[in-house]
Amino acid sequence: MDVFEAIRSRRSIRRYQSKDVPEEMLTQVLEAGRWAPSAHNSQPRKFVVIREEKTRRELAQIAPYGSFLREAPVAIAVVIDPSLSNHPVEDGAAATQNMLLAAHALGLGGCWVGSYGSSYEEAAKSILGIPGDRRLLSIISLGYAAESGKSSRIDLDKLVCRERFH
Amino acid sequence: MDVFEAIRSRRSIRRYQSKDVPEEMLTQVLEAGRWAPSAHNSQPRKFVVIREEKTRRELAQIAPYGSFLREAPVAIAVVIDPSLSNHPVEDGAAATQNMLLAAHALGLGGCWVGSYGSSYEEAAKSILGIPGDRRLLSIISLGYAAESGKSSRIDLDKLVCRERFH
Repeated sequence: MDVFEAIRSRRSIRRYQSKDVPEEMLTQVLEAGRWAPSAHNSQPRKFVVIREEKTRRELAQIAPYGSFLREAPVAIAVVIDPSLSNHPVEDGAAATQNMLLAAHALGLGGCWVGSYGSSYEEAAKSILGIPGDRRLLSIISLGYAAESGKSSRIDLDKLVCRERFH
Repeated sequence: MDVFEAIRSRRSIRRYQSKDVPEEMLTQVLEAGRWAPSAHNSQPRKFVVIREEKTRRELAQIAPYGSFLREAPVAIAVVIDPSLSNHPVEDGAAATQNMLLAAHALGLGGCWVGSYGSSYEEAAKSILGIPGDRRLLSIISLGYAAESGKSSRIDLDKLVCRERFH
């Protein structure tokens, strides 16, 4: 899929078919995350792939906006190491965005569940065995879409300033 | 350009030809930023397009890793409003990554200059007239590449954990 089409047509998908995600597709999604840029190429990231329903159900219970993690056949937790980068949140976010674009291009649906600094980050870290010095940046849900999703954006002329902020 | 090819082949470009970036290309890059996801679709972002050499030279002088902002014909500052989102840094980073992918797909080079929380963020905000309650997430340099750029990434099997962090 063309990169502009992928960027333009991707939507958050929160309803999923029960059909599983093939391992080869998952690898392509993870590869997209791997190639995201990071500050000084520090790559302060790990990706935890969760297929087990028990774990997804636990995550769905604690994440206020992530109840669909129960239905999505795959979740990917993006874990960052703040000791390795000056911009670990940005580095984790770039990887998350790459993976969402890749999933969409493969015909999969996904949704970005924000975790960093959220009320449930510590509980999710505990569920996933993430050490105290790491942060859970995001959890991506992944699967075949059971809804089309829709969204809108602010007009470009309201977003763009020339030369100085105004 | 295919989205996987764009993700896989993009490199940070820090040397630029003097050739200007056409306005139509710039619009396509900004459009890619506009369509990035954000927490609850809050879209807490503005993009400041800087073409004036004086401003780019000032930014280049203060940004420790952004001296090339002087040569790049265009810079885009991504400004975030933390009052609008629970995840403003992630929201700004997703837009930055979309714009870098779009630039690469158009045959342009770009580099992500991290600003959020950096030593020079306040000085850059002052140069660009950004209010105190907003944050400067990143500055993207943009132009026709005068270098090929290279990079590498950690192997996937060292990045990915299954079911739990390890």
